[in-house]
Amino acid sequence: MKAYLNRRYMFSASHRLHSDRFSADENRELYGKCNNPYGHGHNYTLQVTVSGQVDPHTGMVCNLVDLDDCVQRAILNRYDHTNLNCLPEFKDVVPTTENLCTHVFDILQRELGHAHLESARLERVKLDETMMNSFEYAGGEEIR
Amino acid sequence: MKAYLNRRYMFSASHRLHSDRFSADENRELYGKCNNPYGHGHNYTLQVTVSGQVDPHTGMVCNLVDLDDCVQRAILNRYDHTNLNCLPEFKDVVPTTENLCTHVFDILQRELGHAHLESARLERVKLDETMMNSFEYAGGEEIR
Amino acid sequence: MKAYLNRRYMFSASHRLHSDRFSADENRELYGKCNNPYGHGHNYTLQVTVSGQVDPHTGMVCNLVDLDDCVQRAILNRYDHTNLNCLPEFKDVVPTTENLCTHVFDILQRELGHAHLESARLERVKLDETMMNSFEYAGGEEIR
Amino acid sequence: MKAYLNRRYMFSASHRLHSDRFSADENRELYGKCNNPYGHGHNYTLQVTVSGQVDPHTGMVCNLVDLDDCVQRAILNRYDHTNLNCLPEFKDVVPTTENLCTHVFDILQRELGHAHLESARLERVKLDETMMNSFEYAGGEEIR
Amino acid sequence: MKAYLNRRYMFSASHRLHSDRFSADENRELYGKCNNPYGHGHNYTLQVTVSGQVDPHTGMVCNLVDLDDCVQRAILNRYDHTNLNCLPEFKDVVPTTENLCTHVFDILQRELGHAHLESARLERVKLDETMMNSFEYAGGEEIR
Amino acid sequence: MKAYLNRRYMFSASHRLHSDRFSADENRELYGKCNNPYGHGHNYTLQVTVSGQVDPHTGMVCNLVDLDDCVQRAILNRYDHTNLNCLPEFKDVVPTTENLCTHVFDILQRELGHAHLESARLERVKLDETMMNSFEYAGGEEIR
Repeated sequence: MKAYLNRRYMFSASHRLHSDRFSADENRELYGKCNNPYGHGHNYTLQVTVSGQVDPHTGMVCNLVDLDDCVQRAILNRYDHTNLNCLPEFKDVVPTTENLCTHVFDILQRELGHAHLESARLERVKLDETMMNSFEYAGGEEIR
Repeated sequence: MKAYLNRRYMFSASHRLHSDRFSADENRELYGKCNNPYGHGHNYTLQVTVSGQVDPHTGMVCNLVDLDDCVQRAILNRYDHTNLNCLPEFKDVVPTTENLCTHVFDILQRELGHAHLESARLERVKLDETMMNSFEYAGGEEIR
Repeated sequence: MKAYLNRRYMFSASHRLHSDRFSADENRELYGKCNNPYGHGHNYTLQVTVSGQVDPHTGMVCNLVDLDDCVQRAILNRYDHTNLNCLPEFKDVVPTTENLCTHVFDILQRELGHAHLESARLERVKLDETMMNSFEYAGGEEIR
Repeated sequence: MKAYLNRRYMFSASHRLHSDRFSADENRELYGKCNNPYGHGHNYTLQVTVSGQVDPHTGMVCNLVDLDDCVQRAILNRYDHTNLNCLPEFKDVVPTTENLCTHVFDILQRELGHAHLESARLERVKLDETMMNSFEYAGGEEIR
Repeated sequence: MKAYLNRRYMFSASHRLHSDRFSADENRELYGKCNNPYGHGHNYTLQVTVSGQVDPHTGMVCNLVDLDDCVQRAILNRYDHTNLNCLPEFKDVVPTTENLCTHVFDILQRELGHAHLESARLERVKLDETMMNSFEYAGGEEIR
Repeated sequence: MKAYLNRRYMFSASHRLHSDRFSADENRELYGKCNNPYGHGHNYTLQVTVSGQVDPHTGMVCNLVDLDDCVQRAILNRYDHTNLNCLPEFKDVVPTTENLCTHVFDILQRELGHAHLESARLERVKLDETMMNSFEYAGGEEIR
């Protein structure tokens, strides 16, 4: 009776793709208009997938209120309405959505256990950057 | 040449999350506003995924008309425009969307074989309860 | 510099379309499966449109936080996760989405003035019942 | 035979809502998290509506290629992947989506005539800031 | 108590934009890739808007079942899964979505009166050709 | 640090489902209205999923500009605004969306290696034929 729960959250943030490892020309070549000075922004849609047994008494994989509290505290409070480039985790790491996605997974995996969500296993996170592209990360495991 | 077909269906139903195993306070604590007396409702979106070889003569995994007939008869006629709490399968089972999802899977797995759809294997069902959360079930197997 | 702001809210509710003015047969004839006993439900999307001058100092038509507070208090707290048939305004009025739509408009028009939103004029409300149908009301005025 | 054409475009930008007319406390009170230092961003969806007679020979209100060229040159090249606060039009004007919306309308009204689009009348522009809120402007005229 | 009902329908059709009034070069210049020989196709979404008094007994603007029957018979049976260029109304008229939109409006205005829908006034039709562009027609009247 | 990138593309095409292996009656029985003479059409949404290590220097799985160039050249230039039945790959193969999906996968798998995208592995393609049905293919491998 293992079932999966997908839950969506939205946040808005700005970023600029730029790496000090590359020259100005290389940055423009590599990141295109995403390298424009002063940055730009996105409405990100985060989809969190957790799995677990459907509890025979409650009929639930996990309590959505607990999951929402955890994501609000650990992710939305940290990233919503911010400039990603100004956050410590992106001091030496380019804030691409790929890197943001792996950070979100790692934070959630650490925090879910502290949030009365022991029965839920974090399967993967998916970050939509725009309507046309999204990224998924499962802790390095395969997603088919 | 194994391919996958995803097909969507929509139905509307009401439910109230409440279990006689718990006290009134425990029910409110557990289910929050979903425990409100008299119930509430949702537009559910059901996504059925079947797999199979692409038939070299017809170019199809299975006939959509047959699949639609089967889902209409076995699922939509049963759940559309109903109060889930009044159905026999939810007499002693809380009609959470997790539980509805596993029932839909079990019914479809049983009925697909009776519907000239032998070539199609039911892979999983996905139920969107709202735009922000959905549940998936694959007969207890892993979904990545 | 008159501009328009559209803001969306979501709530879930159940209803049964049935009128004591009609016989059981007439009710079934008139409302079809929406007359099924015990009711069914929907995820409603409410779109509120207000207009006003863009304030030259703040750059805003009105403060979204104030609008959200007003709609939360006056509409969502009243209708979200309820059975519409059990509410006093639908004691003698069939809770069709048309009637729900006019009630929401009338409540919002009365409440917006009490909520530091004097500069915003309520233009219309739109209620999506499903992805396939929606209703609009503008206090009886024309919408083109 | 007057018909209307709605065309959508997408761009990403960042902004910070902050006015030098107000104190730091007033800015926080007024703009909330939109006042966070360093800004945040959005995927904007721009919908341009033009009207005109359906040409009896071509069957078109106007040529989409011409409209796309005009919007690309006048709007997307200017606003896509930028920080709105760094643009000259927002030097003394807060880059709220209301103000961005009126700027886009004024630019398009001026540019459409230069773009072989004389037969098309700009009716209104609509800017979605997020999935939950949008703004419309029609040159100060009424939109119902 | 005048309210508005929007109802959506979907159909799929193919067309080729080409006019015998123009040379091959002019056709290519005018219609671009829409002039490709053998045609191409779209999933059209049709939105029909009708208005009327909310009936105090039924709580409805009009009966959706009647409206659906009328649109199915008059529009979907005619256009769904067809090649528009092969229909008589497009023998001498280019099947642009503008022209399709005005035809749909004219047919619906004529047929609604024959379908027990006398209380409903056809306000406008909207045809989405793709997610990025749509056309609206209101019998030649203004839409704001 | 294996991550997944999903990227969407849109194209419009027409097709007619018909096989010379079957009689006229069998074709109508098998393909229903999709067998209508002269064909019909769809707006297809193609989702391409590639996987790879997140490059520690660039923060990217692969360069979106390179991926877009490859898909534009190999897929969109070939299929957008065409009649699928007229293409050589569908001379003896019915242009169902299942068959189109497997062709798109095979083309992309061959072309990605020629496009400076060696680090990206093609995982699967997904083709939405309408809002209600879609097909997925992963080179014959399992998708859960």
